[in-house]
Amino acid sequence: MNDHGIATADFRAIDDASGLRLAMSDFGNRGVLKTRRFGYDGKGQVVFSGTPHADAEQALTELGGRDCILESLVPFESEFSVIGARAADGTVRCYDPSENIHRDGILRTSTVPALLPEAAIDQATAVVETILSALDYIGVIGVEFFLCSNDKVLVNEIAPRVHNSGHWTEAACMTSQFEQHVRAVCGWPLASTSRHSNAEMHNLVGHDVDEAGQILAEPATVLHLYGKAETRAGRKMGHFTRLTPLSHRR
Amino acid sequence: MNDHGIATADFRAIDDASGLRLAMSDFGNRGVLKTRRFGYDGKGQVVFSGTPHADAEQALTELGGRDCILESLVPFESEFSVIGARAADGTVRCYDPSENIHRDGILRTSTVPALLPEAAIDQATAVVETILSALDYIGVIGVEFFLCSNDKVLVNEIAPRVHNSGHWTEAACMTSQFEQHVRAVCGWPLASTSRHSNAEMHNLVGHDVDEAGQILAEPATVLHLYGKAETRAGRKMGHFTRLTPLSHRR
Repeated sequence: MNDHGIATADFRAIDDASGLRLAMSDFGNRGVLKTRRFGYDGKGQVVFSGTPHADAEQALTELGGRDCILESLVPFESEFSVIGARAADGTVRCYDPSENIHRDGILRTSTVPALLPEAAIDQATAVVETILSALDYIGVIGVEFFLCSNDKVLVNEIAPRVHNSGHWTEAACMTSQFEQHVRAVCGWPLASTSRHSNAEMHNLVGHDVDEAGQILAEPATVLHLYGKAETRAGRKMGHFTRLTPLSHRR
Repeated sequence: MNDHGIATADFRAIDDASGLRLAMSDFGNRGVLKTRRFGYDGKGQVVFSGTPHADAEQALTELGGRDCILESLVPFESEFSVIGARAADGTVRCYDPSENIHRDGILRTSTVPALLPEAAIDQATAVVETILSALDYIGVIGVEFFLCSNDKVLVNEIAPRVHNSGHWTEAACMTSQFEQHVRAVCGWPLASTSRHSNAEMHNLVGHDVDEAGQILAEPATVLHLYGKAETRAGRKMGHFTRLTPLSHRR
């Protein structure tokens, strides 16, 4: 719990090998070593699970040897995120949370509505507002959360930009996270974040993109390819969003 | 009524002044002189209403002197259009009709759902399918109709392309007329034409565009500016689409 009342996983700042050794001992040689900035798609992080100190120190060296944190492993029940936006006049608008599934450190699906307790949604939305105001932030932010046992909500990471877990907004909302960001940074008013449909966004990672032809044949699916020339394993090549009417229940 | 059973206004092909004089006499010196192709926004047409033959001949000369038609004036109750698409495999999909209001020959608003008798919608949709198949057409087409007394439906004009009266589809449908056209001409399957919202599209003509700031402040309105450098009277500078939930009634 930090000064703003925002709960996160327990963590230690790591700037050298001795700091890492101390933190590893505190956390029983388990945890996630992360760079403090610019991590994405599992890049910039290494998971330790009973890892010898020498191997952990090697991992720290590979991440640059400093400006990292070691985070304790969180036994979460699900992951979700909230895309928020703050305008120049301080107005904040949040999209509905999405439930996210990752594989190999890469986001695979975001589903809206998320199956979350109402209290968790309220808490997460309040946290996003707190973060945006505390940073005097203007633009779109993605905030990733863990839902833990007893409906406890922890902040996992913040992405100070449009975020992959908000790509469904381009298909299911009147105003996408992209337009919302442009509105914010241009000093224009924010638009509605309301959804016209339920959405299930799937990333096309690596050769998933070879399925694009089949996806095009689904009548209520919005396909977005990034136009990358080369398909590589683990590379995000595009995404698609399946839409269903709001009246459908998950 | 032509060979395909498609009803239009009465018209005469006009290729010279004598043909025009004959047609004027047939139609009581009233009618619309139109170029057969490439007319838009009232350009390429002149309305006659008890106009002297000499003035009509002058108008014909200004339109190129040939390749025109003279159409009898149609006392219509409302104007509407249907945006259709035909794929390489012959599949046809039509969007819901929009009710259109023109001023000074320029489209001002398109509203969906259109207030039309069910039979008129069915008839118009069947006409679009007939046109697309008869032309072995691939891509998006806009077909403009008049609704006349006794619910009679006449074809006014066809626009063999995406059409201004279908711009609402980008805001209110899963798949816009633009993506639908790309799908058709690329030989891909057509996508759903279903609406997630009701829509009211307004063109920003000339200095209407100065209102863009106010329009941006409407939370459920999608604004599209064309980025034209110079604002001129009668020039289409952009459009916006106000969205309301499907459950709202007009």
